[in-house]
Amino acid sequence: MFRNVMPRYEVLSQDAMATLDAGWRRLLTEVGVQFASPRALELFRAAGQRVEDETVFLDPDFVLEQVAKAPREFDVAARNPANSIHIGGDAMAFGAVYGPPFVREGDVRRDATMADFRAFAKLAQSFPVLDSAGGVVCEPNDTPLDSRHLDMTLALQTLTDKIYMGNVVSGVNARDTIEMSSILFGGRDLIERAPATISLINCNSPLRWDDRMLESLIEYCEAAQPVVLTPFILMGAMSPVTIPAALVQQITEALSGIALAQLVRPGCPVIFGSFLSNIDMQSGSPTFGTPESGIGLLCTGQIARHFGLPFRSGGAMTSSQVPDAQAGYEALMTLMPTFLAGANWVMHSAGWLEGGLVAGYEKFVVDVELVQMLREEFTPLEIDEASLAFDAHVEVGHGGHFLGAMHTMERFRTCFYRPLLSSSENYERWMRGGGADAATRATRIYQQKLADYEAPPLDDAIREELEAFVTRRRAELGD
Amino acid sequence: MFRNVMPRYEVLSQDAMATLDAGWRRLLTEVGVQFASPRALELFRAAGQRVEDETVFLDPDFVLEQVAKAPREFDVAARNPANSIHIGGDAMAFGAVYGPPFVREGDVRRDATMADFRAFAKLAQSFPVLDSAGGVVCEPNDTPLDSRHLDMTLALQTLTDKIYMGNVVSGVNARDTIEMSSILFGGRDLIERAPATISLINCNSPLRWDDRMLESLIEYCEAAQPVVLTPFILMGAMSPVTIPAALVQQITEALSGIALAQLVRPGCPVIFGSFLSNIDMQSGSPTFGTPESGIGLLCTGQIARHFGLPFRSGGAMTSSQVPDAQAGYEALMTLMPTFLAGANWVMHSAGWLEGGLVAGYEKFVVDVELVQMLREEFTPLEIDEASLAFDAHVEVGHGGHFLGAMHTMERFRTCFYRPLLSSSENYERWMRGGGADAATRATRIYQQKLADYEAPPLDDAIREELEAFVTRRRAELGD
Repeated sequence: MFRNVMPRYEVLSQDAMATLDAGWRRLLTEVGVQFASPRALELFRAAGQRVEDETVFLDPDFVLEQVAKAPREFDVAARNPANSIHIGGDAMAFGAVYGPPFVREGDVRRDATMADFRAFAKLAQSFPVLDSAGGVVCEPNDTPLDSRHLDMTLALQTLTDKIYMGNVVSGVNARDTIEMSSILFGGRDLIERAPATISLINCNSPLRWDDRMLESLIEYCEAAQPVVLTPFILMGAMSPVTIPAALVQQITEALSGIALAQLVRPGCPVIFGSFLSNIDMQSGSPTFGTPESGIGLLCTGQIARHFGLPFRSGGAMTSSQVPDAQAGYEALMTLMPTFLAGANWVMHSAGWLEGGLVAGYEKFVVDVELVQMLREEFTPLEIDEASLAFDAHVEVGHGGHFLGAMHTMERFRTCFYRPLLSSSENYERWMRGGGADAATRATRIYQQKLADYEAPPLDDAIREELEAFVTRRRAELGD
Repeated sequence: MFRNVMPRYEVLSQDAMATLDAGWRRLLTEVGVQFASPRALELFRAAGQRVEDETVFLDPDFVLEQVAKAPREFDVAARNPANSIHIGGDAMAFGAVYGPPFVREGDVRRDATMADFRAFAKLAQSFPVLDSAGGVVCEPNDTPLDSRHLDMTLALQTLTDKIYMGNVVSGVNARDTIEMSSILFGGRDLIERAPATISLINCNSPLRWDDRMLESLIEYCEAAQPVVLTPFILMGAMSPVTIPAALVQQITEALSGIALAQLVRPGCPVIFGSFLSNIDMQSGSPTFGTPESGIGLLCTGQIARHFGLPFRSGGAMTSSQVPDAQAGYEALMTLMPTFLAGANWVMHSAGWLEGGLVAGYEKFVVDVELVQMLREEFTPLEIDEASLAFDAHVEVGHGGHFLGAMHTMERFRTCFYRPLLSSSENYERWMRGGGADAATRATRIYQQKLADYEAPPLDDAIREELEAFVTRRRAELGD
């Protein structure tokens, strides 16, 4: 997996950090955070925190004590050990888009189906640069609502041999995910020792955790499965319009969730989550790839390190409806800060379109190219005497060219990044080839990848046990 | 103009810098640099440097003495003083694309004309984010070759009131540019005191300066007009394939040119230039917006600061043939490091397409959006108590929304960047509006800008004198 050993780009001064620190302490103490779960409220009450109705007024130092129980870094196991990942430090792991109810293929935008889900899982498996298909890579609208988490988890477990995310729609779904993971990995005790899932617990920002998310959090934490505590902030709607206020709110929300996770199971792996962008103040529409989201991301990395926590942020976000120039630059406007900030767990790395409502096949290819390019760009140069190629200058001379130089011949296959999608064909050649733009070329690439896909091997007994589990649970759930 | 007071992103260690330092010293001393100009060779010989045929073997310490004579920062005057710029320090100035023989409008790619040149000059004038139309914003192929520098300079002087670049095709053209600038600004003594042009002197990399470029350099430096000494490096062709080698070569070339400039006129303003990308090793095509070019750009900024020189780099480069997703991400793949490195003079900021062969109308709009966004992103946050919006949290409460909060109402007009091109319309609304992608919307934007264009006022007597000069010189040149 990728290790980002380049410098972090830090933009908050010590004074700024102190102001933010005072801010979250005050917000936590005076406004508090709502937890819509009797179990959560009971845990906080038992730990000596003030609880009024559903609101918990947390002592900041108590919260920091809980945060200190979380590991700074941890591993998540894939069924193919070569694909297991490390979360934290300089490690960066990349998962595909999460949550879209629609898909876009070329000019067609339509409801996502289970076939789409499977196709995207195959694509995620096919590109080594992705560490995971994520979780809900798109919503399989043609499957029954109550049991589709079983279909999705089975698809992720069988079509990929990479790590996958747990379902969080309810505590029931979380339990099913844990049971299926126990089957795949050989028992619950094994996954408790070496976590096999990551699950996304979103805050109902501002300052409220809802019941189903909390049910899921509790299930996963009891099983020692990592949870990503994510404030879900579109500035102007779910937070004040000022970035510092959004950062303070983000800290307050994330740390409150992390404190709960540690009360459920001390030492449970957690990730400081961030989903931070803004709305268009004229239309109220969410916007992505904005300057504000870029700044927020850079700050979030610095903040997470301040608390000694791995963090989740970034991705290839865009508001664009199609994989056009806007989709390209907005995706990179988020992905570049993702690397500069050294995000550890990067959701929405591939396929995000139309504000996350659409999983785009072509956009998936665009984004894989971007992640590949950035991994190359964030690899330190090796600068030594040999790299200076003095002899090549002697060989080539003034005004010459290096195409045939010995130094070039020895390195030409690997010296530069080789694009997946980008074209540098000259105009005449490009026109002879049909004059295809990036989106059109992306169609060919994903279709070829799907045609070439090979399922990773899986023990038949395990596959049968998983399928039997799904069949039984589907019946129990009435679907 | 824009001041980038955000931190610089520096990626070279002290050890790496020392290795590069040893490298350029050796290259300069042992391989030397060719100067195809008797005058240049004479200046170097007179200064005690070893000259063999056209090759000058330069003493590195002598070169550094010359470099130390150049100002670290300087101003360039525009005829509208509000548009004058500062070069160096934390200032960043942006000029449009330079040099394309072709233009692209929608689906049409064709030879550029003088009408295109004028249209792009008007666009550069119309977007405040651009400090200059640059110089050869496109090649006016329908005008006579020998006198087109007069037409271009006149267009830049009259259609814009921003700074402009000098023509460098020959010493004759440079002299004409200087004379026209003297007319516009009220005399040669005035422009010698407050420079009115910037001129691009490209190296014929590797390690050779050609005669016409040197003639131009000498003319401009004698008139105390700033020159940008630019190694023109596509790694694999004009330099070895290793980035450190390209960096060493770039230092060698740039410093050798800067030394000459200081010999011509000590204290003449200079800019450490960089045009650094790579070729595709399969096809030999130039590629832009690559990871290698991004790394090179970050290193170049650090190197220029090491020598105490302002630097030129970056822009909105792409290999893409059309303003598609690739064009969007490649442009940003260069522009983001441009800001991270704090480039002082950013050429090719708008309109660059197809490896610089094409000036794209739609691409121009895409790039203006990118520069605008990055200027916003590279503006430091103000973090104080008021920015934390504590009262807004008290007003809104848990799980509420901030759309109607007092804090929001007071700030909603200016709180977020307002896009020029990007759309966040929801799908239904976007489809009702015709489902236009970014390129299609860009067409409308540039056409509207041209329709709205108003020429900046210019004294009639000056205009007449400029026109008379052009008429006279055109006749003298036989066109």
